[in-house]
Amino acid sequence: MVTSGRRRRVTIADVASHAQVSVTAVSKVIRNAYGVSPAMKDRVKTAIEELGYRPQAVARGMRGRTFTIGLVLPHIRNPFFADILDGLTEYLENTDYQAFMIQGGATRKVEQRAVDALMDRQVDGIIMVAPLASKARLEEVAKEKPVVVLARHERSPHYDSVYDDDEAGAELVVEHLIELGHRRIAHITHQDDSIARPADLLHTIRAATYERVMTEHGLAGEIAIATSFYHEQGGYDGARELLSRTPRPTAIFAGADQAALGALAAVHAAGLSVPGDVSVAGYDNTHLAALPNIALTSVDQAGGEMGRAAGKLLLERIEGRMTPVRFSVTPSLVVRGSTSAP
Amino acid sequence: MVTSGRRRRVTIADVASHAQVSVTAVSKVIRNAYGVSPAMKDRVKTAIEELGYRPQAVARGMRGRTFTIGLVLPHIRNPFFADILDGLTEYLENTDYQAFMIQGGATRKVEQRAVDALMDRQVDGIIMVAPLASKARLEEVAKEKPVVVLARHERSPHYDSVYDDDEAGAELVVEHLIELGHRRIAHITHQDDSIARPADLLHTIRAATYERVMTEHGLAGEIAIATSFYHEQGGYDGARELLSRTPRPTAIFAGADQAALGALAAVHAAGLSVPGDVSVAGYDNTHLAALPNIALTSVDQAGGEMGRAAGKLLLERIEGRMTPVRFSVTPSLVVRGSTSAP
Repeated sequence: MVTSGRRRRVTIADVASHAQVSVTAVSKVIRNAYGVSPAMKDRVKTAIEELGYRPQAVARGMRGRTFTIGLVLPHIRNPFFADILDGLTEYLENTDYQAFMIQGGATRKVEQRAVDALMDRQVDGIIMVAPLASKARLEEVAKEKPVVVLARHERSPHYDSVYDDDEAGAELVVEHLIELGHRRIAHITHQDDSIARPADLLHTIRAATYERVMTEHGLAGEIAIATSFYHEQGGYDGARELLSRTPRPTAIFAGADQAALGALAAVHAAGLSVPGDVSVAGYDNTHLAALPNIALTSVDQAGGEMGRAAGKLLLERIEGRMTPVRFSVTPSLVVRGSTSAP
Repeated sequence: MVTSGRRRRVTIADVASHAQVSVTAVSKVIRNAYGVSPAMKDRVKTAIEELGYRPQAVARGMRGRTFTIGLVLPHIRNPFFADILDGLTEYLENTDYQAFMIQGGATRKVEQRAVDALMDRQVDGIIMVAPLASKARLEEVAKEKPVVVLARHERSPHYDSVYDDDEAGAELVVEHLIELGHRRIAHITHQDDSIARPADLLHTIRAATYERVMTEHGLAGEIAIATSFYHEQGGYDGARELLSRTPRPTAIFAGADQAALGALAAVHAAGLSVPGDVSVAGYDNTHLAALPNIALTSVDQAGGEMGRAAGKLLLERIEGRMTPVRFSVTPSLVVRGSTSAP
């Protein structure tokens, strides 16, 4: 069986005729315009419900808002991004806004295409998570649409920033390992296509903090950094490189849980035990870190809270706020079985 | 410093004036309409590039297409969904279409809101991954928009289906465990808010196949199923329940890798070893399964291929195809260290 044609949509005219009022009156109720009596509102809303009418966001878009916000994620492989999305979704639940996600990808060019796609479809605002674009480019976008940037530390007059205090978080990890008695503590950091001041990128902040704390404890000579990627394979490769050094590190601080999962795998593959031979710590406190066979010591940066804050700030900007806001989350250390005395 | 106002967008009129042609001519080039000379095309395209003009998808939407497709994912915590998204993204790269994701959530009601949101914004078509909605409801959506459903097995005249041969996949796992010498093989299955015939849902197919193969091998008396969820905590709870039975199972087939990760954790937490005391197998062959310290035997159902197929089928429907197509992926077993002889 094959159908022909699609079911006709209920239109604003159908609602008007059903409610026995004018199309203008229906339009006013939909737009929440002034000067509509409560009785008229009830009448129209009843007709809307009875007919199952949905005002077309795209038609509203031609007049003003689309009640759509765009969320640009680098990818959807990091469970930490799911925490951010959950916080955002929860915040938007009681609003008229809906979040659409788009994958930013691994290069600035692809990310730019994704942002263009959102702007072409007239979203009301954009939240970018760990974008690769330069500050200048982010500001160009922010001159066209309200923007909130997550996980970058710049001060911009044109957009809001939501980020974790990455310096405090990295400090917690390195201090913890030193307190346990480790001296040969290595670090796995990340490299990507981003353009920004090192002091504004979370991975360079974490790496610099690692170096600073090591130095402050007289361990400058023990600094060992593998530059790789914040994903499982990256952590695996980084840890392999670090474990091949002589003498071997007794602890590895991976800058993200995804990389720490790969580091755990590399320690295992090398025939070594965690934490017996090598302690491993991560960052993000994803739900995988809590599994008892992984039991990863990690930094909690409250992704849900960051997602909620980003939603709130973006809606304020959409409502007209122009003064920039910076929202910083204070991280905490969650100690689990993957770290112990050397 | 606070800005006021946003930068003016480049309009179609700017392009026309820059190219010294009419707005209609520019519009024709953008729409790829017939009767435009190659010279005119070049001229307009040069102007478009020089001015950085982007035709507004929402304006195109009023005339017809928005070149946007909606991808409804239950959530973004399953790395298998990332494989599907990668396949889809790769397929769309050489088209004018852009995929927006939206989270379908854990209930039919929330999923329905997500689908409504896509339809309100006039996407050209919708891909739904493992939807909770009834077949009747999916068909209602498909009467308004082209629809491709992933991971469900229904035959509908109104939408296309892309799915894994879940019966073949589950058979591979159970046969593998039986061949290794296991008899007390348990299964962790999933429950959710979906409404469908059991024979159309991947988790009920996998569970039924487990029971069938066990019975065929004279192991009907050993059947043990924990009904939980296809996520880490669900697998953990399910495995705990199964491991508390007397006699204890020697193998656990979790219906999804996410649940298998939880099952591995539960075996570990019970002070037992994998595969020494208990073999564990999953389904999806996510990238985590391949990590050497996880080394999970799993079924590969080629998520990337499914994503590409879904994109291709949806675009065909958008171009006018009405005949329904069903695309089935043949799964394969990837044996790793988590399964061995009992």
